[in-house]
Amino acid sequence: MLKINETRFLNFFESLKEFNATPNNGYTRRAFSEEDLNTIQWLEETLKEYDLYSHTDSVKNVFGQYGDKKPYILIGSHLDTVQNGGLYDGALGVLAGLEILITLKEKTIDLPFSVKLVAFRAEEANILGGTFGSHAFTGKIDYTERFLKDIKTTDLTEEDVRNAHCTDDIKAYLELHIEQGAILEQKNIDIGIVTAIAGLRLLNVKVTGKSDHAGTTPMNMREDALKKATRLLSKIYDFSETLDNNSVLTVGELNVFPNQSNVIPNEVNFFIDFRSNTNEKMDECLKELSKIITEENQMNVDISAKPMDSNVIEGLERTATELGYSNMRIVSGAGHDANTLSEQTPTGMIFVPSKDGISHHPDEYTSEELLVKGANVMLNYIKSL
Amino acid sequence: MLKINETRFLNFFESLKEFNATPNNGYTRRAFSEEDLNTIQWLEETLKEYDLYSHTDSVKNVFGQYGDKKPYILIGSHLDTVQNGGLYDGALGVLAGLEILITLKEKTIDLPFSVKLVAFRAEEANILGGTFGSHAFTGKIDYTERFLKDIKTTDLTEEDVRNAHCTDDIKAYLELHIEQGAILEQKNIDIGIVTAIAGLRLLNVKVTGKSDHAGTTPMNMREDALKKATRLLSKIYDFSETLDNNSVLTVGELNVFPNQSNVIPNEVNFFIDFRSNTNEKMDECLKELSKIITEENQMNVDISAKPMDSNVIEGLERTATELGYSNMRIVSGAGHDANTLSEQTPTGMIFVPSKDGISHHPDEYTSEELLVKGANVMLNYIKSL
Repeated sequence: MLKINETRFLNFFESLKEFNATPNNGYTRRAFSEEDLNTIQWLEETLKEYDLYSHTDSVKNVFGQYGDKKPYILIGSHLDTVQNGGLYDGALGVLAGLEILITLKEKTIDLPFSVKLVAFRAEEANILGGTFGSHAFTGKIDYTERFLKDIKTTDLTEEDVRNAHCTDDIKAYLELHIEQGAILEQKNIDIGIVTAIAGLRLLNVKVTGKSDHAGTTPMNMREDALKKATRLLSKIYDFSETLDNNSVLTVGELNVFPNQSNVIPNEVNFFIDFRSNTNEKMDECLKELSKIITEENQMNVDISAKPMDSNVIEGLERTATELGYSNMRIVSGAGHDANTLSEQTPTGMIFVPSKDGISHHPDEYTSEELLVKGANVMLNYIKSL
Repeated sequence: MLKINETRFLNFFESLKEFNATPNNGYTRRAFSEEDLNTIQWLEETLKEYDLYSHTDSVKNVFGQYGDKKPYILIGSHLDTVQNGGLYDGALGVLAGLEILITLKEKTIDLPFSVKLVAFRAEEANILGGTFGSHAFTGKIDYTERFLKDIKTTDLTEEDVRNAHCTDDIKAYLELHIEQGAILEQKNIDIGIVTAIAGLRLLNVKVTGKSDHAGTTPMNMREDALKKATRLLSKIYDFSETLDNNSVLTVGELNVFPNQSNVIPNEVNFFIDFRSNTNEKMDECLKELSKIITEENQMNVDISAKPMDSNVIEGLERTATELGYSNMRIVSGAGHDANTLSEQTPTGMIFVPSKDGISHHPDEYTSEELLVKGANVMLNYIKSL
C-alpha cells in the first residue's frame, strides 16, 4: 500500500497556523479576509514549489493537478474557518489533497485519470451564504437581488462568479473531513465512510396564548402559551425517542413572549431542526410531526439528503480495511462542499474522529495518527481506481 | 344608607386625565415625573378647595382629613401609574377617598374617629422599588447602599424618607381598587371583599446540559437542556393543575442558551412565579415543588401572604349586602399599598370588577356604576363603625 509522507503532511498544518486573525484563541481565516487571501496565496506558492500545475479561478477557488489525462478525480475541501475555529475543519481535506498530489508525483504513480486538488472558497457561513466556492464552481448560484448586492461587499464581481462555473467531466469528488461529532471516537473507529449527507428541515412553530397578570388570573381562566408549548414539546421529544440512528431532531432555539416572570406568555416560538439520511425518511418523519403539531408552523429550510455514491462508499470501505484501519459507515449531520458536488458527480466523503465531537472551536482536535490514516485511505482509494 | 355625589366623584377622574405624559395612549404619571408632581399639587389644591385639612409629608404622600378626633381611619391608594397605564389603578382609591371626605363633611356626619385620606407616592415599579410611599410612611424602608444611591436620582433625600415615618395610632386602613383580574366580571359580581393579598415566591430554576452540533450528535449521546427542562416543566404544570382556587403558578420567563437552532441547548433558565393566599399553603406547595425540582434553583423573591383583618372583611361584606350589591370574597393576586399597611394596622380592601381583567393598560375599564358602588361600600362601612 502507498503511504503519504507524514512529516511533510503534518508540516503543512504548521504552515497554515501562520494565517490566523486570532492567535492564541483558535484559528480564524474568515472568507474574504486578509487571512483568507494570504492562505490562497500560500497554497498557490506551495503547489508551484512542488512543481504541480496550479490554477486559481475567478472566485479564487484554488486548484492543483497531478497528471494531464481526462477526466479527473477532484479531491479537496476548504481553507476558510469560522471565527475562532479549529485547525482541522476544511484544512484537513485540502492539505491531505496537496500531500496526495505530491506523493503521487514523487512516486510517479501512473493513473488512467488526473487527480485535481481544490480548495473551495468561502465554505463557512459568510455574507454569500456558505459553500459559496462549490456553488460557483457547479453553477448553482442563485443570482437574487440580495446576492448581487452582497457580492459588492466582497473582492468579487457578478462576472467573476459567473465565470467560475466549470462544466468539466469530473470522474468523482472525494472529501476528507473531521467528523464534527463523537460517534467514531466513542466507538473507537479510525475511519468513517460517509453514506449520505443528512437532509435538513427547519420547522418554525408558533404557539399562541393570551397574556394576563400572573397574580390575578386564576389557573382555569388562562391561555398560557408556554404551558401549551411544553405539552407540545413533550410530544415532540417523545417522537424524537422513536427515531432511528441516522436521524436527529433538535429544538435549539425557543423564544417566549413577552418573557416577563409576572406575565402569562402569549407566544412561544421555536425551531425544530430535523435531519435524516434519506429524503423518504425525512418525508415520513415530517408527516408524523405534522400530526403532532396542530399549531401554526412553516418550513424555513428544506435541504434534501444527499446520498454518497455507492461505488465510492464500497471502494473507500475496502481500501480502509486493506490498510488495516477500523472503519464504519456513517451519516454526515453537517453540510459540506460535497453536498453541492454530489448532485452532479459521484461523490464520497471520508471522516476521521473529532475529539469529544468538537468542531468550529479552538478545542477541535484529531490525532496526527488519524489525520494520516484519513489521507492514506484517500491516496490508496485513488490508486485503486 | 349614605351615597356619594356621583357627578362630583366621576368628574375627579376627568380632572386627573389632564396629567398625562402619553395622551391618546393610556395614562402615564410615572413616579417622580412632572405629571406626578402636578397630580400631587392638584390633590392638595382640591382638598383646600373643599376646605379639608390637608398635609403633604416629606416624601410627598398627600393627606386630607375629615374630623379631628383620634385615632383615625386611613383610606386611599396611589395616583402614580405605570407607563401607558389605565385611568383607574390607584386613582380609584384616592378619588373615592377624596369624595368620601367631601360627602362626610357636606352631610356633617358625626363619627367617633377622624377619616384620613392618603395618596401614597410611587406605588408602581420605580427606581425605589414600588410601594415606596407606604414603605416610607410605615418606616419599612431598607436603607441599602443601592437605595441611598438611587434616592439621589429622585426629588427626595435620605432625610426626607426618614422623616416620612409616621407612628400614629391608626384604627384601620381601607383601600378601594380595581380587581386587575376577571373573576368578579366573569361571575357578574359587583364587589370583591379581599380576604388576603397573596404571597409571592419567585423561584429561579437552572437546567444544564451540553452544547453539541444539532446535526452530528446522535440522539443517545445528547444532554439536551431544553429536553430536560421540558420534562421538568411538564411535571410543574401537572402540579399546577392540582392547586386550589386561591393559588396560581406561572412560568412567564424562560431563556434558552445559546438559543441557536442548530446547537443543542446547554442551559435553560426559568422563573416560577407562585402565589397563594396563606403562608402555610405557600410553604406546603413550595415543599411539593422542591420534590419535583432536583435541578439548581434559588428563591429570588419571597413576599409573605397578607391576611386582611377579619372584622373589616365581615363589616365590608355586611355593608355591601345592605346596599344591595352582589359581593364575594376574593384573594388579591397583585400587591398593593395595603400589603405594607396590613402588617401594623387592621386592613381591608374592596375590589370592583375590571373589564376583561385588564389593568396596567390603556384598555383598563370599570363602569361608572361599579366605581360608584365601590365608593359607597367604603363610605357606609366607615359610617357603620
